Amino acid sequence: MAELTAKGRATRARILAVAADLVLKQGVAGTQIEDVRKAAGVSGSQMTHYFRDKRTLIKDVIAWQADKMVRLQQTPELDSFAAWQRWADRVVERQAARDFQGGCDFGSLAGQLVESDAETRADLAAGYEQWLDLFRRGLETMRARGELREDADPDVLAQSLLAALQGGLLLSQTLRRADPLRNSLDAALAYLGSYADPGRRPA
Amino acid sequence: MAELTAKGRATRARILAVAADLVLKQGVAGTQIEDVRKAAGVSGSQMTHYFRDKRTLIKDVIAWQADKMVRLQQTPELDSFAAWQRWADRVVERQAARDFQGGCDFGSLAGQLVESDAETRADLAAGYEQWLDLFRRGLETMRARGELREDADPDVLAQSLLAALQGGLLLSQTLRRADPLRNSLDAALAYLGSYADPGRRPA
Repeated sequence: MAELTAKGRATRARILAVAADLVLKQGVAGTQIEDVRKAAGVSGSQMTHYFRDKRTLIKDVIAWQADKMVRLQQTPELDSFAAWQRWADRVVERQAARDFQGGCDFGSLAGQLVESDAETRADLAAGYEQWLDLFRRGLETMRARGELREDADPDVLAQSLLAALQGGLLLSQTLRRADPLRNSLDAALAYLGSYADPGRRPA
Repeated sequence: MAELTAKGRATRARILAVAADLVLKQGVAGTQIEDVRKAAGVSGSQMTHYFRDKRTLIKDVIAWQADKMVRLQQTPELDSFAAWQRWADRVVERQAARDFQGGCDFGSLAGQLVESDAETRADLAAGYEQWLDLFRRGLETMRARGELREDADPDVLAQSLLAALQGGLLLSQTLRRADPLRNSLDAALAYLGSYADPGRRPA
């Protein structure tokens, strides 16, 4: 898609945003390419120009959501106990603002598509790896600064934080209430806190 | 379905087991009622007799998976630190035995169907509530026995354990490796362990 003009890139981005929104509300199976075309207000030939078929579209929606999620969470950096606490608060607020509908923008794609085919699973795995990298970098900074003890493993902590987030989101989405997500994140933060260097006061 | 004969119940159960298996492997959208009929080796009229349409079938698959999951996890009771540790080990072993394919039998249904319609969401929520009840009962026993401190909240702990399980399963399913699930469960068990009554030695 490197050959697209600025206008072409904007149209493609608009179609993707509409597709991602529909997929979140109606699920992948419930979203047809024709729904996306109508909602984006483009012609059939434009649609085909940017996305060969539904599979191509969904593949790009996965990449789009992975990018968005990483951009959303990389500022501010998750490199202090206070930053992680604010992150957790913001996650819960954001879900509460939409009444816990839709769940995790990225995780809900994973839940729907992970067993669809090998290529899609690999795309989803790449998205989670990006996310784990982001968490790990912040945790490595905390350890380098001495906020976390030397025996804290940023890989292990990143995985436990992301799993708590994904599981908490799915439970809160299904039960339509805040407490599973809140309690899951609090537990993961408490686990993180158990690696605080006792010689230092957490920021 | 109270009017079914023993033979009828057996046929219905067989169709359900086949449907649940196909849904786990191919997803809900990728499983058509005709695939289920063929795989179960029943006639079209038998299929229609037990399951009016795909929606009825999926509704019953949800209930069937919720029941199975509760039966699977209620023995032995999750009422000691040692029981929780064995539970976590068994969960990881079970997923490793199937190369992390399919993820959580129940959670994968939730991930696929939670936004499909209000009734299905309510069925999925009821399944998670059953599961939370099961966890909570074991944790209440531990608190009553004094293994957990008085300030341990069985609701909060049940939610954090179930979220860690669901998130860890989704990550391990997508990444096709054990460590996210293992580390997520270890973190949740460490959090549970932080409520051990210091006056007692954990069993």
